[in-house]
Amino acid sequence: MTVNGGGYFRQLPLFAGIAEESIHRLELHAEFHSFPRGAVIQKQGAIPTALPVLLEGAVLLLGGVRTQRPAVVDIVRAVDVLHLAPVLSATPAPTSVQVVDPAAAVLIPRAAVHKSVSADPHLAYRLLTLLGSQYDALVAQVKDLKARNASQRLAAYLVELAEDRGARVVRLPYDKRLLASRLGMTPESFSRALSTLRDYGVETRSSEVSFSDFEQLRRYALPDGHDCDEGDLRD
Amino acid sequence: MTVNGGGYFRQLPLFAGIAEESIHRLELHAEFHSFPRGAVIQKQGAIPTALPVLLEGAVLLLGGVRTQRPAVVDIVRAVDVLHLAPVLSATPAPTSVQVVDPAAAVLIPRAAVHKSVSADPHLAYRLLTLLGSQYDALVAQVKDLKARNASQRLAAYLVELAEDRGARVVRLPYDKRLLASRLGMTPESFSRALSTLRDYGVETRSSEVSFSDFEQLRRYALPDGHDCDEGDLRD
Repeated sequence: MTVNGGGYFRQLPLFAGIAEESIHRLELHAEFHSFPRGAVIQKQGAIPTALPVLLEGAVLLLGGVRTQRPAVVDIVRAVDVLHLAPVLSATPAPTSVQVVDPAAAVLIPRAAVHKSVSADPHLAYRLLTLLGSQYDALVAQVKDLKARNASQRLAAYLVELAEDRGARVVRLPYDKRLLASRLGMTPESFSRALSTLRDYGVETRSSEVSFSDFEQLRRYALPDGHDCDEGDLRD
Repeated sequence: MTVNGGGYFRQLPLFAGIAEESIHRLELHAEFHSFPRGAVIQKQGAIPTALPVLLEGAVLLLGGVRTQRPAVVDIVRAVDVLHLAPVLSATPAPTSVQVVDPAAAVLIPRAAVHKSVSADPHLAYRLLTLLGSQYDALVAQVKDLKARNASQRLAAYLVELAEDRGARVVRLPYDKRLLASRLGMTPESFSRALSTLRDYGVETRSSEVSFSDFEQLRRYALPDGHDCDEGDLRD
């Protein structure tokens, strides 16, 4: 199903203020698709033929090294643009994309993306800032993986989840095996981390988590900060 | 020291084929700086005022969470462009930048970058593919941190180092504490990982590392691959 005339893109904040002509060029050969849970939108290692704009649902970015079960590099919720980097440079996708919550996406052929970006510096700038925010999110994740231990990573995840929801009782949005992989730990470490967090007022019943001392948990999670001494690693 | 007329940028593959006018605009207010080991070019959390183009040397991207020693998110060698994302979107830098090998860099004021990119879609596209390759490198690192254990990460690092150098005896380019942090482990885990790798033919004398069975080490390091089953994490 082509999206031309559907006006999908005009409704997206991503394309706000972008010239009609560029939006038209992107929509011209774009196709709208629905994907069930488990569907693979992109295979790691293959060069993407189209840019997926995720309109609904959520996907896993799965990264594998040989013989190992693939790790959850990230979980991406709509609305977002996937695999901008390999689409623009026509290089192999660094991860697979697999649907975890039933998804709808518009697939824009690579040639149309290339043409539109090459012709419209405002669109190019918009995509640069988008890719930049995705880059920053990955940097934050690398910091998380290197500077926090497993329990602190889970604490930081729960603090962010509760703050996003504005609630002190939250439901885990994904099963524990998937969240464990996203947070860079085994399911066993995830369970141990949950036990550790009981000392910080975290109670779990099935997938529901409640907090009796949120500030203590927050301190334990070590929020990002700049009060560290950059000199520490010099010598 | 301004670089106008120095022709620095024309010599960089990064700017090959970019219009004279754009290069001139970038060079106009750019400044050339030398930095000694230990110098901090950018502080985490501050909005960068200029885009550093690293021409010589190497820097650490240091990411900190409160009260902890900052982690080495990455080690970047010349020639590369640093902090493209926060410069373009005028957002706080996600990491500090600290010199580890004496460095030379050209600093291009943010306004000049913004103006040049907004006016020249070819320059914008070039920066998009550059940021894309930096993004892909971070994805590879997240995969490394989640899918390999500490010894496998060190093995993968050594395999890449030896292949880059085209040699079977290599010198570690940085001290062990710094490499440990880059690879997401403590100095103690790094030493244990080195011991484990003895079983795979890795011999270490001070900072010199030699390999007696490179293929075995390579297999142990689990090269990136796509023979994993994406279905594994569905249920």
